[in-house]
Order: sequence, then C-alpha cells, then structure tokens
Amino acid sequence: MKSDIQIAQEAKMEPIKSVAEKLGLCEDDIEYYGKYKCKISLDVYDKVKDNKDGKLVLVTAINPTPAGEGKSTVTVGLGQALNKMGKKAVIALREPSLGPVFGIKGGAAGGGYAQVVPMEDINLHFTGDMHAITCANNLLSAAIDNHIHQGNNLKIDSRRILFKRVMDMNDRALRKIIVGMGGKINGFVREDGFTITVASEIMAILCLATDLEDLKERMGNILIAYDLDANPVYAKQLEVQGAMALLMKDAIKPNLVQTLENTPALIHGGPFANIAHGCNSIMATKLAMKLGDITITEAGFGADLGAEKFFDIKCRYGNLNPSCVVIVATIRALKHHGGVAKDKLNTPNVEALANGIANLEKQIENIKKFNVDTVVAINRFVTDSDEEVKFVKDFCDKLGVKVALSDVWEKGGEGGLELGKIVVDILDKNDSKFMPIYDVDKTIEEKVLTIAKEIYGANGVSYSNEAKKQISELVKFGLDKLPICMAKTQYSLSDNPNLLAKPEGFDITVQEVRVSNGAGFIVVQTGNIMTMPGLPKVPAANKMDVLKDGEIVGLF
Amino acid sequence: MKSDIQIAQEAKMEPIKSVAEKLGLCEDDIEYYGKYKCKISLDVYDKVKDNKDGKLVLVTAINPTPAGEGKSTVTVGLGQALNKMGKKAVIALREPSLGPVFGIKGGAAGGGYAQVVPMEDINLHFTGDMHAITCANNLLSAAIDNHIHQGNNLKIDSRRILFKRVMDMNDRALRKIIVGMGGKINGFVREDGFTITVASEIMAILCLATDLEDLKERMGNILIAYDLDANPVYAKQLEVQGAMALLMKDAIKPNLVQTLENTPALIHGGPFANIAHGCNSIMATKLAMKLGDITITEAGFGADLGAEKFFDIKCRYGNLNPSCVVIVATIRALKHHGGVAKDKLNTPNVEALANGIANLEKQIENIKKFNVDTVVAINRFVTDSDEEVKFVKDFCDKLGVKVALSDVWEKGGEGGLELGKIVVDILDKNDSKFMPIYDVDKTIEEKVLTIAKEIYGANGVSYSNEAKKQISELVKFGLDKLPICMAKTQYSLSDNPNLLAKPEGFDITVQEVRVSNGAGFIVVQTGNIMTMPGLPKVPAANKMDVLKDGEIVGLF
Repeated sequence: MKSDIQIAQEAKMEPIKSVAEKLGLCEDDIEYYGKYKCKISLDVYDKVKDNKDGKLVLVTAINPTPAGEGKSTVTVGLGQALNKMGKKAVIALREPSLGPVFGIKGGAAGGGYAQVVPMEDINLHFTGDMHAITCANNLLSAAIDNHIHQGNNLKIDSRRILFKRVMDMNDRALRKIIVGMGGKINGFVREDGFTITVASEIMAILCLATDLEDLKERMGNILIAYDLDANPVYAKQLEVQGAMALLMKDAIKPNLVQTLENTPALIHGGPFANIAHGCNSIMATKLAMKLGDITITEAGFGADLGAEKFFDIKCRYGNLNPSCVVIVATIRALKHHGGVAKDKLNTPNVEALANGIANLEKQIENIKKFNVDTVVAINRFVTDSDEEVKFVKDFCDKLGVKVALSDVWEKGGEGGLELGKIVVDILDKNDSKFMPIYDVDKTIEEKVLTIAKEIYGANGVSYSNEAKKQISELVKFGLDKLPICMAKTQYSLSDNPNLLAKPEGFDITVQEVRVSNGAGFIVVQTGNIMTMPGLPKVPAANKMDVLKDGEIVGLF
Repeated sequence: MKSDIQIAQEAKMEPIKSVAEKLGLCEDDIEYYGKYKCKISLDVYDKVKDNKDGKLVLVTAINPTPAGEGKSTVTVGLGQALNKMGKKAVIALREPSLGPVFGIKGGAAGGGYAQVVPMEDINLHFTGDMHAITCANNLLSAAIDNHIHQGNNLKIDSRRILFKRVMDMNDRALRKIIVGMGGKINGFVREDGFTITVASEIMAILCLATDLEDLKERMGNILIAYDLDANPVYAKQLEVQGAMALLMKDAIKPNLVQTLENTPALIHGGPFANIAHGCNSIMATKLAMKLGDITITEAGFGADLGAEKFFDIKCRYGNLNPSCVVIVATIRALKHHGGVAKDKLNTPNVEALANGIANLEKQIENIKKFNVDTVVAINRFVTDSDEEVKFVKDFCDKLGVKVALSDVWEKGGEGGLELGKIVVDILDKNDSKFMPIYDVDKTIEEKVLTIAKEIYGANGVSYSNEAKKQISELVKFGLDKLPICMAKTQYSLSDNPNLLAKPEGFDITVQEVRVSNGAGFIVVQTGNIMTMPGLPKVPAANKMDVLKDGEIVGLF
C-alpha cells in the first residue's frame, strides 16, 4: 500500500496555467508561485461578476471520532468524480496551519487517491498567507504596546488587552507570558500570550471579508482592549489597519492548486473551527461559484459545529445559498459512537452500529432544519462488512435520505461516481432554499438557546457568572447583534466529549462569551479552548528531513 | 521631483523570464513568484558549475552619518552603468527586513533612478525567505522548551538558554519576556526574549551556507544552551535540523529581480551587520559570478565593519576573490565627519571637508591591507560645490586612488558611466589577490587586536570580566578557532559613536563575547547591541494603506 506522500509525489500535475485555463482564466489572471500554485488576481472578480453562480455543495460529517471520517478526502474525491462526469467542478478548501505539521499530525490535504497537490507546499509555507496574517496580527500587537509606551493617549487598560500575539507554531511556552520586562526602554510590563496563527481574529476576518475594503474595515473593528474607564478600544483607533491591509494585499487573493486528477481546487483561509467558524474564505467560495458549475466545499469538525457555522455565519455574510449537503460517515466511526473501543472497530458489529447511528440521524435531522437537501456518504473501509453497509443504507432509506458508498481514497474520482450522481440529481431538482436557524437581532441568550436545543438537542443553557457579566457588557456597547460562534467539544453533540451518539437530557454550560467584532461574531465557549497547541514528546519534526536531491522525508 | 515609489511604480519591468534569459537561464531554471520575481532552482548550480567565474566588485562606504551615503543606490547604479556599457553585470544585494518598514524607515531598495523593483514586494513579504527563517528559528525554540517540559534528558539549564525566539517586527515589548507561565501544562517558567528575524543565527547561516547539506549541518551546530553540568548543548541534539532545513528548502534558493533598467539583481539573505556579517548569501554571490561577467555586491555599514567582515568572514567561507572595492562617500557626509551640523551640510565648506576626509583616507588604507584595488565613488548632491568636488578628487589623486562622480540617483546607469569605466579598467588589470587580515587559528584576543589596530586604528583592546569568562569558556570547548564578527557602533572607526573622521589614541572595550557556532563566527560586542527595534511615537505604518484599486500609499 502506498503512503499518501508517495501517491502525491507520483502525481502527474498539470502546469497551473492549464488548470486555470479550465476555469476560463488566462495567464494575466493569475500570479504564479512556482509551477503548480498560483494566486488569482483580484481583477478577475470584476471580469466574472456577471457569470451565473454555480451550485454550492457542503461536505460535513458526523461527530468526529478517533476512527477518522475522511471528510477532506470525500470532498476532494467528489470533486474528482464530478469532473469525471463531465461537470465543471471546483473544490474550495481551507489551508492547513503550518505549526501542527511539526507536532503530532504531519501534513494533510485529503488522502489516498483523493488529494490536493503539491501537498508538501500546501502543508509548508504554501503562498505565504499564514505568514501575512501573522505579520498583520503582530503589527497590531506591537502598535498596542507601543501606544501605551508612548504615552497611552487612549488610556488602554493594560490589564484588559484582548488582542494577543500569534505564531504559526505549536509552542506551549508562549501560551501565557509576561512582556515588557527590562525597564523603561522596553515598555510597560503586562501579561500576554500567543495563540497559533489560525486562531487569530485576522484569519476569521480574511475568511469572512468580501473584498479588500471590507477586510480593512473589519480589521479596524477588532475590539482590542478596554480603556481605564471600561470603554471599548477598537483597532482603528491605532490607525494601523491600512498597513495591516497592505500586509494582506496578496493573502486576500485565493490560491489555485489541483487534485491528483487535475480538478481545480481553491485553497484559501483556514480559521479554527471552535473559536472561529472553520470554513475557507467567502472570497474563494464565491469565486469558485463564478468559475465553475458546481463548487464543493467543507466545514470543520462535525455538522453540529461545522455545518451550523457554515450556514449561520459564512452563508449569512456571503449571501450564499447552498444546494446540497453531503454528510460523511464511516461504519467504524458509527460503531465507535455505538460504544466500540478503538482497537475493536475492524470487527463487524451491527448492534453497535445500530446504537451509534443515532449520531448520523441527528445530523441529518439538523441539516433539514436549514432547509437544504442531504445525502449521506459512507467512506468505505475494507473492514466494513456487507451486512453493516446494508444496515446503514436501509437506515437512510427509512429516513428518506439518499446514501452512497465512497471509495475515493482507493480509487480517486472513479470511487465517487455513485455519490456524484446523487449530488447531481439533487442539484438538478434545485429545491433547496437555505434559511439560517436564528435571527441575529435576537438576544445572545436566545440565539444560543436556539442552537443548543435545535442542533445539539439540549434541554437548556446555563451561564457562568463571568459569562453573564461579559454578555451584559456586550449588550451595553451594542456588540450583541451578531451571529454566534459556538466553541464546544467536537466529539459530542453535547458539551461533554464522552457523550457519544445522540445524548439526551443534558444542558449546555457557557463559561465565557466574547466578541470577535472584526470578524463579526460572538464566541460562546462551553469550556476551555486551547488556542496554542504544544509539541508531543517526540514531535513529527524529528522524523522530517529534506535530502540532498531535494527529496522530502517524514512529512506525512 | 518624483519620489522613489513614484519612479519605481513607473518602471517598465520586463517579465522576469526575460531577465533570467539574459543570464542564460530558461523557464525550467526558475520558479515564479508572480510576474516579476522568481527563485532560481538549485539544479542551476550544477548546470553552471563549469562556467568561468566572473569578477567580483564590493561596494562599501565611509562611516555612515545622518547625511546618508547612498551605498545601495551606487551599487544598483553601477550595475546599470556596466549593463549600459555592454557588460554582463549582475547585482547581488541583501533582502530588507519587514519589521523596520513599519517603524521609522519605510522601505529601501536603492533610490531615485537606481532602484531594484518591484520595490513594494521586495520590502514586504518578497518570496517569503524571512518567514521561513522565522519558522525554522521558532521551531528550534519550541523544541527547546518542549524538551525541558517532556523530561529534559539533555539536562538543559533553563537559566542558560542562548537561542532566542524571533519575529520580523519592531516590537520592544518582546525584548525581555517570561515564558511558560500558567502551570504544568505550559511548561517551565523561564526568562526569554525575541530578536528581530534578521538577527537570527539562522539568517547568518543561510548567508554563509554553500548548499542545503551545509545549511543543515550549520543549523545543527548552533550552540543553543549549556546544560546543568556547564557543557554546551547543540541544536542537533534536539534532532530538528532536518525539519528546519525542510522549512528552508525554498528560502535557500536565490531570488531574481531587476533594476529600473532591467539589469538582473539577485537579492538573497540579509543578516544584521553588527552581531552578524551584513552581506547577502554566498550562494547568491557565487551564482551571480557564474551567470555574469561582473558581480556587484555590497556590505552593511561602513568599510571598517562591512568590508572587513565581507573579507574575513564571507570571502573566507566562500573562497571568493574580490577584484575591486568601491568606497562610496558624499561630500555632505565628509563635512559631517569634519564637524558640520546636519542643518549646515548644504553650505560649501572646504575646511570641514579637509577635516572629515580623514575618514575616507583611513577606509582606503584599510582596503589596501586586504590587497584589493579601490576606487572612490562620490555620490553627488546638487549642493556640492565645484571647489569641494575638486578637493576630494585632488585628495584621492594624491593618494593614488581613482575617483569618480556618481549621478545614478538622478540619471540611472548613465550617471554611473565614469565609475563603471574605472571599475572595468581595474578588473581588466586583474592584479588583486585578496588576503584576509588575520589567521583564524590565532587566539580570539589576537584576532580582535589585529582588527582593532589595523582597521580601527586603536591602541589596544580591553575586556570586561564577563568577556574574559566567556572567552575562556569558548577556548575550553574548542569553539574559538573561528573568524571574528565585530559588533561595534557603525558611526565611528572607534567604539564611541561621537568620535568622527579618524579618531586616534583610543582603546576598544569588549563587553561580551559569544559564539554563533552554526554560522561559524565569534561575535565580539563592544557595547549593548539592540537586536529588537521598537516603533517610534508615530510609526511609518500609520501612513500606509492599500487603496481599492490596489494602489499602495505611504510605503516610502
């Protein structure tokens, strides 16, 4: 069996110019980054603005388990399958964060015969978007401390600075730090901390901005601190949003690469899926819809977090109307939801499957609440028994939901034709009319309660005293009429990672509420969210190398 | 009068492919970064290895003053002039650091009609080399703290960690920090600090490495800390040098851009000129020499620091034999050395000029000690009187040194023809045979004394107790047989910035001695060197913007 990187390195990539040509783009429309990557010039938006919008398909999943679901693999494979069927399909994905590559996970860009390439580049510096975000973020941070050092006209309360520095590295030592030590020339001492770059509000802003002007305005609207009179201080008061936008002038342009079967893929932006909304940029998705007939995109974590935020945050801000949702599940993962331990997942067990499938059922029910058509994709493993597959198919039939087996990992686009045909049928019927699940003008508590009850199946929501105080502050400053971004465990529909399948009779407990005012959402945390990972005892980095002949070792 | 950025934006750039073709490179030899920047593939080294080496010309200067000397402008203009004369000239320059662009200085890439373009890109993210260095540096830092957190098998003494984190930003609050706060999950608390990326030892290594394997080996040799038994700990003991090299796999490739007159320019690497050696990469210089007949390069600060390190560090490691040195001076700057205040520099004053010219005289004398031919370039200002110009010319004539007026700022290559002709004459004579000024196998004290007496004109050298202790430690671990990298004020030949022209009767006082064992030199500090700048009261960032149509404002 070949490894992902072996398959990727054997890929017959087309020059990126040829991939761009498939989308009707000429050489003047693109900016090369080597032979197989490019950015798409912002002028193209104007050129294609009268094109008819293509259809939008979201790929999401059941709650993730240690068994793995293969959501990105199915997304890429579905794009390849549609391509094989003669459809003009475009894939829109998130870009991976560099830091975690050196930690536990190695790289990631789909898998098997359903990958985007060049995977080494996509997983390393790619086209520098992460670095641009890091710079823009840290320029604002430097400006904050500099402002205080230079006299603090804005009376920023150094005990209440909300905006943190970032680095694209797994570095636990930077989670909580003291800066400004060493006396007068180094500024005032205060507590600070670094998060990983993808957790920066700038990343969320990049992904929700509709153009450069919007990006700049949103960056200016970041709530960076409170002043000594307890009033909010916004980034624009430091007058560096222009310089920040200048740093982002190329990062805002979507990146074009290709799959192993030369299907065009726009990879652009990759915000955290807990404290942010976990989707690629609106600009990439909108452009993909102008350039292709069918756009396939994905959202982070399971449908309870990923799809909900895709709908209520991304589609709301982007005026997007998705036509179809693919929910990815594996039989192994459903058995895990049914109580089977990780090392027993390869043994057929229809009883456990019957217990675990409630998770899939609930996710299907949830998507219906957004009024979008659904299809289930079973990402097939060789260990799946025929009986198990039949059970899932029968279950979906009973619910009136289409289901397809996906073999894209092993067979590429060929293995996704069954899924592709169902998706095309749904798109041809064309009867989805997406609705968000709550009205942004409701109170924070009402919006959170709607999500908790309708999506998670909770009885109710309770708030910590801290969260209550934070809500009243947001209300006081008129910062509460925004969509909600739930930061909750991805492993359960509840806020307890141990409650698998479809938990019932539980409450959601909100620990902390804060606003990402530039991005334009309220982050509601149900627990401590780690925004700076650490390295494990033996980091993946220790196995990595680049040899004399340029061969890359240990990246995957 | 047009501003630098206006001139740059009006430039008629050739597609970078055409610039590469002038050097005999085809499309397969380059990797595009947009239309006007590319990296040169490492395969090219093999392809050109049997080419005859072109001649190497160093551009350096008198000790810098607030009046400005225009060293980069003359370097670029000389390249343009040689090009005009039908010579196959290639320019090799340092890449600018991003952070300081947002502080006081704005961007820099030559000036007037002697600039390299696209200047916005060169001054912003360029091709991502700085970001790659930042990542590689910070991966090693994260690995250090992770190693301690995970059990500290190497017994690293967290009070004696020498290797710091970096960021490409002017951020004084990060100069001295405490990391690892917040309890057990965040590791052990310790003192740390950030330097700006260009001050990273990784940057110095990039610039001295001869290939990827050498880069990796040098990164492994970085002295990162001492252990609890006071023994040295090297980066390779953490086994991340392979991953660091992987992060640098593209950064190691020289970048190709062009001047306003389409002369090819390799811009690659830009280490600090105090705690590092202040020259572009050996790889870029060597490649330029294989691709062109004449390579023009520069070194940081004045000749006492820049040229000395160029010779004793860069040329030594790169086996380079420079054939000619251009010493840039302005009449304004020489008058400043002669005691004239900044606001009086435009008034003709031959007497002050006669006092200040001793600085130029000493720099000329110094270059001769390396056995390389010299020419003086007077970078002309409209305020220079004919009498002043005549004085400098006569002075050089008496010394037997050729001198040329340079008008490249106003006239581009046309304004550098006089200088170009002298340079070509010197190269045709071909009688330089460069010699370093000291033997690396001498003791640290002997090497420093040679530089202090021969180059600076000092009587002697004294050492702080700290420095003495550091030297004996380096001797103990066999880390002392390396070239010296002096970190001294750039404003004076002495270690006192207020002693202008040619000071006499002074001693040099060494405060600190440490090894950059990966880069391969011993840093000898004569005072506190600031390796992390701060932002001024009104940062240049506050005036910067990128407008809706993509126009860039305030960068210069």
